[in-house]
Amino acid sequence: MFAKLKIKLDDNTLDYTKSSMFQGILFEKIDTEYADYLHQQSFHPYSQGIIKQKNNEVYWCINTLSKDAYEKIIIPLLDSQLNEVHIKKIDKTVKLIKKELQIQESKELTVRFYSEKPTKKIKLDFYAPVSFKQNGYYQAMPDLRLIYQNLMNRYSSINDMEMFDSDTLEELLKNSSITKYRIHSASFPMEGTYVVGCVGSIIITFFKNETVSKYARLLFDFAEYAGIGVKTSMGMGMVKKEEL
Amino acid sequence: MFAKLKIKLDDNTLDYTKSSMFQGILFEKIDTEYADYLHQQSFHPYSQGIIKQKNNEVYWCINTLSKDAYEKIIIPLLDSQLNEVHIKKIDKTVKLIKKELQIQESKELTVRFYSEKPTKKIKLDFYAPVSFKQNGYYQAMPDLRLIYQNLMNRYSSINDMEMFDSDTLEELLKNSSITKYRIHSASFPMEGTYVVGCVGSIIITFFKNETVSKYARLLFDFAEYAGIGVKTSMGMGMVKKEEL
Repeated sequence: MFAKLKIKLDDNTLDYTKSSMFQGILFEKIDTEYADYLHQQSFHPYSQGIIKQKNNEVYWCINTLSKDAYEKIIIPLLDSQLNEVHIKKIDKTVKLIKKELQIQESKELTVRFYSEKPTKKIKLDFYAPVSFKQNGYYQAMPDLRLIYQNLMNRYSSINDMEMFDSDTLEELLKNSSITKYRIHSASFPMEGTYVVGCVGSIIITFFKNETVSKYARLLFDFAEYAGIGVKTSMGMGMVKKEEL
Repeated sequence: MFAKLKIKLDDNTLDYTKSSMFQGILFEKIDTEYADYLHQQSFHPYSQGIIKQKNNEVYWCINTLSKDAYEKIIIPLLDSQLNEVHIKKIDKTVKLIKKELQIQESKELTVRFYSEKPTKKIKLDFYAPVSFKQNGYYQAMPDLRLIYQNLMNRYSSINDMEMFDSDTLEELLKNSSITKYRIHSASFPMEGTYVVGCVGSIIITFFKNETVSKYARLLFDFAEYAGIGVKTSMGMGMVKKEEL
């Protein structure tokens, strides 16, 4: 199952540059044993971060990708007693003024794959810098190969099945292209250093192959929960998907 | 030899969307036989187009990549009688208020390669949409592989020597990356249709390999004359390079 908890904050000065501080808060709320388990995973069953919407509203979003992660991470945050959090690093208390929860069965994504018409265009909004690691360096351009590859790998690891296959990847690349975009590089601060990523929006157009378009939609449905690229548990890579 | 003629126009409403009309004017000024010869070439020995600078000044730029092209294309434009041009399609006469000519021996670029220190960063400003053709589709994202490949191929064709080699291309890609950018897609109108390309600026950072950085600088020195990508004779792909 996939879950998304959106918590509205009463502080409009916050944005994604404070996301990693909220990861700290998250770890205070969950039990130590599960926290230790999370630290050992290469693909995390959750993503979280701060998003500032165009209307200036600020949300702390926490997404979980499994039943286990939902129970261990989201349930504690739903505690009715929890109506404010304290950010130690900047000594600030922030009120949680609204909580919205959305739960979806994982198989819903595959049901859509089979039952719904293919998508012609998908718009992705990058709420927080999206970056990739390639040959040991961070890659801050939203290359379609890296995007698809990352999502296929994460989807496999979450569903305990092999979704990655290089023929499918080549089919995706042959049948889709970034046709419209407005993007810029942006720094994501992290532990005294920073990672450069991509912020803005891109539109991906799908060509003749309908299966490819449906498969890509499934990956991007998943991306709304999992994020894209590196450091999604610290607040990078948060995306919103829109079908045009 | 490489030559760049910058002609200042007295009309600040013009921009790159009118570039292809100026290709028409260019062809009126050069002799028919040479025009026929140009139409048969896959890589053109010139590039031209309208650029609008940040201070709103508008220039018609004509670059030639050979002695022959210089004599046949630029010399006629230097005629002292030629102080205005008429754009038929929009029935407009535009005054040519200033002409600036810059000539450089081709071998200057290779001299720089051997004598000058390597570059750490190069900034490219895309004055007009830069686009590539890949698998039959236009590719509007400034992918480094496509940029290097295009410049190596054009440099080879101009210098009648084989500059393209896949090992060098892989070395370039392994040792450089787009680390900062602010770009968006933009349409370039052309014969009733349009081609989508990239507008904005990118900064390329070079890693350890000094030879790679020098080689890339040579390619980008060349790019200021040749342009990058498709339709550079119609006004697409005009770039300015800055060493940071």
